[in-house]
Amino acid sequence: MNAHHQPEAAPVLLRQDAGGVATLTLNRPQARNPLSEAMLAALSETFAAIATDRSVKVVILTAAGPVFSAGHDLKEMTAHRADPDRGRAYFTDVLGRCSAMMQQITALPQPVIAAVEGTATAAGCQLVASCDLAVAGEGARFCTPGVHIGLFCSTPMVALSRNLSAKHALEMLLLGEMVPADEAARMGLVNRVVPAGDALAEARRLAAVIASKSPATVKIGKRAFYEQREMGLKAAYDHASAVMVENMLARDAEEGIGAFVEKRAPVWEG
Amino acid sequence: MNAHHQPEAAPVLLRQDAGGVATLTLNRPQARNPLSEAMLAALSETFAAIATDRSVKVVILTAAGPVFSAGHDLKEMTAHRADPDRGRAYFTDVLGRCSAMMQQITALPQPVIAAVEGTATAAGCQLVASCDLAVAGEGARFCTPGVHIGLFCSTPMVALSRNLSAKHALEMLLLGEMVPADEAARMGLVNRVVPAGDALAEARRLAAVIASKSPATVKIGKRAFYEQREMGLKAAYDHASAVMVENMLARDAEEGIGAFVEKRAPVWEG
Amino acid sequence: MNAHHQPEAAPVLLRQDAGGVATLTLNRPQARNPLSEAMLAALSETFAAIATDRSVKVVILTAAGPVFSAGHDLKEMTAHRADPDRGRAYFTDVLGRCSAMMQQITALPQPVIAAVEGTATAAGCQLVASCDLAVAGEGARFCTPGVHIGLFCSTPMVALSRNLSAKHALEMLLLGEMVPADEAARMGLVNRVVPAGDALAEARRLAAVIASKSPATVKIGKRAFYEQREMGLKAAYDHASAVMVENMLARDAEEGIGAFVEKRAPVWEG
Repeated sequence: MNAHHQPEAAPVLLRQDAGGVATLTLNRPQARNPLSEAMLAALSETFAAIATDRSVKVVILTAAGPVFSAGHDLKEMTAHRADPDRGRAYFTDVLGRCSAMMQQITALPQPVIAAVEGTATAAGCQLVASCDLAVAGEGARFCTPGVHIGLFCSTPMVALSRNLSAKHALEMLLLGEMVPADEAARMGLVNRVVPAGDALAEARRLAAVIASKSPATVKIGKRAFYEQREMGLKAAYDHASAVMVENMLARDAEEGIGAFVEKRAPVWEG
Repeated sequence: MNAHHQPEAAPVLLRQDAGGVATLTLNRPQARNPLSEAMLAALSETFAAIATDRSVKVVILTAAGPVFSAGHDLKEMTAHRADPDRGRAYFTDVLGRCSAMMQQITALPQPVIAAVEGTATAAGCQLVASCDLAVAGEGARFCTPGVHIGLFCSTPMVALSRNLSAKHALEMLLLGEMVPADEAARMGLVNRVVPAGDALAEARRLAAVIASKSPATVKIGKRAFYEQREMGLKAAYDHASAVMVENMLARDAEEGIGAFVEKRAPVWEG
Repeated sequence: MNAHHQPEAAPVLLRQDAGGVATLTLNRPQARNPLSEAMLAALSETFAAIATDRSVKVVILTAAGPVFSAGHDLKEMTAHRADPDRGRAYFTDVLGRCSAMMQQITALPQPVIAAVEGTATAAGCQLVASCDLAVAGEGARFCTPGVHIGLFCSTPMVALSRNLSAKHALEMLLLGEMVPADEAARMGLVNRVVPAGDALAEARRLAAVIASKSPATVKIGKRAFYEQREMGLKAAYDHASAVMVENMLARDAEEGIGAFVEKRAPVWEG
């Protein structure tokens, strides 16, 4: 695809389904794939549709062009400074919708894997941090540069600080410097780094592994992960134990354990 | 020891005490040291006994044979599918007892060090994550493979996600792939990796260092660690300050500080 | 400066301001820069003064002599064992003041960068962990050695366990062994390691970057970081979104975004 001839009438977000994997591609390469109103709406609607789509077992989130995503659309936002309230209602609305979309990723039954080449900045970096897993090509870079323009990356920090240790997160937020892929991996922002250009292929490999598992089981596990994480140790164990009892009684655990004992491949309910 | 000729009448858990260090050895190598009912009971009773045993200053948890522990005993569990309630009461009971045993490790006054050779999977991996410290031989591997059999490792994830960063924990849980020792160390699941076969020796070295300290002080510190960890910053400081005042007024701090000032070895109350 | 001829009448804490950066130097090198009553008071007063000093945009915390800080002044503390209450009131007071000072760092509007050469032990290590960022020279070492003298580093563990993963923090606390700079970096206790003697220069480089940003924005971001960190995901997003709306409406974001669009350097309100 030649990004420079991408007509703006093309969908902001592409979706391609194959083998139980929905691949979503941010598709405004010329504009650096901003999380514009249109992009936020497309992501939010697509996640809502996927949440109840039993044919989708894993989601890959990737981007067209050399920039993964540059974050919020500053042009769109600054235009609302002319509103009677200087944009307060608009900013509240758009940041609320963006935060809701990020939480849709966490709440989605299916795991979401970011496949990142190029740069992911501000809310674009938050998008990567919000995914369950992330793969980066060697040339990928990550940045929370809001501090350069007087607008601290406060909402990105929510996702960032739930992935990185405190000093690493503050380093990104206070300095706003570009972090190369290997350092992002060391910090825990991405799971693994592959040769430049291979991020999508590696994400597909991981997606295929997960897509071969019981979707019902993966859904139970992902939800429980984020739920128990916010609890104290005892409450977390009580919750996870209750979850695991229900999981044990569900059809796919019976099938999976039976197949394991009988040394055959399991057939999931799907 | 030749694992293949281990009679099943042998104790499921061996305990050997020396120099203030109790070494517990999972002893069902032929069965891959499952956390069977018998093993759970033996661990739970042994931890309860050690909790009030003033001769024990440190606990090492290790295993006989090439597998550290394969986790729950699936045979035992699936047998209860024939119960009138399809096993619900049994699963609830056994998962509750397993979670309680894991929390006994955290609540134990003495530090617990895992010494791992071979593979630690599912609840076996959780056992390592639940220990205060962990040493792995180079060939050790770690895995939460429940996703392969339709039974997500939901209780193991409680311990795992309190040791690893979010994406690392989710990678282990969603893919169920084997993680080699050096990667486990990088992720924070184990403290250090030593040549294959040396994990127990290294655990003993660490245990000897800790056993030379005041048991009363170590008990105060370990308990405070897990308590303050679940609090906000201010509450944590208030609690830790109160703990430290009591520690300062205790006999062993007076002795320890006195010995330090007088450049002599302290004699702990024990 | 020759530490060995430092007169004790010199200020315990030096402050030098330049380019919006206040550099604080612990200045009792002969005594290993203890967090004595005098040092705690000086730090606390200085942080209080800086909190409302609009000329200061970043703080660097460093130390004179080969030891960064050896932590609490044991001589001062043990002298109070002769009090009628065996020191209880005194210990409560001094630990409370120390914890309050550590929390002043977190609450300070300006980022605080530790520049560490030599050893930082006990409350000295806590001081590094409490800073927003930390740079270490290659020879720097970190230790929470309270366990050696029967006095567990319970208050240092509050800061330590909010920077390091559980097993790394417990390893430092239970063993009390010296951790070299590169391992401290791997664990997340310091951001980066530079050649011995260069920690202050590197801290100044980072400080200059931060000092070129909008102080109002940095203040908003730093405060929000520590606030949202203690919240669940949804509450954190609600809070961060509200913070970001206010930030967007503030003068420096308007200026910063405007300057960015117009490709000129922003002029902050300061």
